[in-house]
Amino acid sequence: MPSARPLRRVTVFAPATIANLGPGFDALGLAIHKLGDTVTAERVAKPGVTLVVHGRRAGLPTKSTDNVAAHVARLVLEACAPELGVKLTLTKGMPIGSGLGSSAASCVAAAVAVNALLPRPLPRAELIRFCAEGERKASGTAHADNVGAALLGGACLVRGGNPPDVWPLVVQDVFTWIVAHPHVVVRTADARKILPRTVPLAIATRQWANVAGLVSALASGDAALLARSIDDAVVEPARAPLIPCFYGVKEAALAAGALGCSIAGSGPSMFAAVRTDGPVRRVAAAMRDTFRREARVGCDLTVSRVNREGARIVRSAVR
Amino acid sequence: MPSARPLRRVTVFAPATIANLGPGFDALGLAIHKLGDTVTAERVAKPGVTLVVHGRRAGLPTKSTDNVAAHVARLVLEACAPELGVKLTLTKGMPIGSGLGSSAASCVAAAVAVNALLPRPLPRAELIRFCAEGERKASGTAHADNVGAALLGGACLVRGGNPPDVWPLVVQDVFTWIVAHPHVVVRTADARKILPRTVPLAIATRQWANVAGLVSALASGDAALLARSIDDAVVEPARAPLIPCFYGVKEAALAAGALGCSIAGSGPSMFAAVRTDGPVRRVAAAMRDTFRREARVGCDLTVSRVNREGARIVRSAVR
Repeated sequence: MPSARPLRRVTVFAPATIANLGPGFDALGLAIHKLGDTVTAERVAKPGVTLVVHGRRAGLPTKSTDNVAAHVARLVLEACAPELGVKLTLTKGMPIGSGLGSSAASCVAAAVAVNALLPRPLPRAELIRFCAEGERKASGTAHADNVGAALLGGACLVRGGNPPDVWPLVVQDVFTWIVAHPHVVVRTADARKILPRTVPLAIATRQWANVAGLVSALASGDAALLARSIDDAVVEPARAPLIPCFYGVKEAALAAGALGCSIAGSGPSMFAAVRTDGPVRRVAAAMRDTFRREARVGCDLTVSRVNREGARIVRSAVR
Repeated sequence: MPSARPLRRVTVFAPATIANLGPGFDALGLAIHKLGDTVTAERVAKPGVTLVVHGRRAGLPTKSTDNVAAHVARLVLEACAPELGVKLTLTKGMPIGSGLGSSAASCVAAAVAVNALLPRPLPRAELIRFCAEGERKASGTAHADNVGAALLGGACLVRGGNPPDVWPLVVQDVFTWIVAHPHVVVRTADARKILPRTVPLAIATRQWANVAGLVSALASGDAALLARSIDDAVVEPARAPLIPCFYGVKEAALAAGALGCSIAGSGPSMFAAVRTDGPVRRVAAAMRDTFRREARVGCDLTVSRVNREGARIVRSAVR
């Protein structure tokens, strides 16, 4: 339904996301709190998109033609209101190349913000295709696991396709997600290159059984099943060498009481799942200490329950 | 808890099951009503297992040393009460080599029946390992997708392992499962031999996304998601040639309003899922008619909602 009076300016926060969640490569994503990007979109007279970037980070494209937020904003405008002019202000609130859906957060914040300025905003789910195109610009593939979760909140399933076929999943809010971001950079494109091209059937079968277990455990809140199902026999072995002391950190997290621990997205961040009434602080400390002690790498910790809301409008003005 | 007075004789029905459910090869199973095997177990003086078979079918081993029901009964006795003697009467109520878990139904009925005679019966979930060994005898692999569902009812997830790691799944009772069993024989062992040894990563990814969608759709009752997720890009293409006119029957089922259609277990039976308030009869007729018209093969139809109960004791006597 078009709003009675179109917005002139809107500010949107889109959260960081954990893609894959272990076995669910390119299929599962989950939104968390705290980390994320903020985009303000403001109508201006001149058609097209202009971009201002705050909170510069190494590797962040600030030119409007290179930046994914501006790219997605342009795609939305071209499809829905080519006559409109929008000034985007991107405040980068999370690191680039962290594996936590940094480009997705920018894409989603931009899409939701620009959409809110339209005379007839699209339903949120229809923004996924624009955001996935932003991911294509960022990494070469239009994957939607991060953008789906950032846009819709909670956990989501991506069934591939173009536009991507994204479905919300039921998630019980009984687990806490710890993300440790070590201070090294892994480019998504590089992390995709080293993946195996084929998978033995027995390994693939184990993987889809674990994906089934993970979906079931998220829906039921069954910690024992979650613990067994965060088991990635396909992608983790290939990508682990990109992360300093991956197996040491994982072992430390599990020894400290994590239910499961694997790579967030394409890394280098690692996530651990812990019962919210369990040893959350101990697991977080174990991961940070192991990175520091065994790999001599500092890391940032984020501790969060699932973010059910996804991208949210934090401010708006009609004039 | 041991019963106050041990049973002397017990009769158990174990249902037919649809394994794989499309994409979930070796991971998912679902129990149905109507078809199944019945086993009566009776204490006798002489230790060990003796077997009587009713309802003989082509290919059914009737010797105690070859029959899977007797094999499972022996395994349970050896583990729990080697001094006991049991006379088993197997009434085969379903066809062999149908893909509907015929051997699993025999294994499960035998295990539950013999277990009920024990001074200290095991919890039902602990019978899975004996039943999976029965499957190993029947087909060479100790798969547990059929036995898990036949034993526990509803739908189940098998995460592999030895003993198999089996978990119940949440299933909304909103779908009707149509099974068409054409009058041809496919041996499970043969159907396993023709599987691909490796799977391209992109196909495997599509498969586990579909497994995730299927688990989610069973739990939520979402017909649209179920329809998209019954999509098997790995096993169905390999096994379809074993079934006369597979693609014609599948197309006819979908055209008649089925949400999805694929191979039941290792075939040759095919299953279709239909909304219970949808065109159930039309889909069933379309499948039967296509087998008859295009493949000149007769088939038996079974139409059933999910069987939540699994194996059940139908009669018992203490003396």
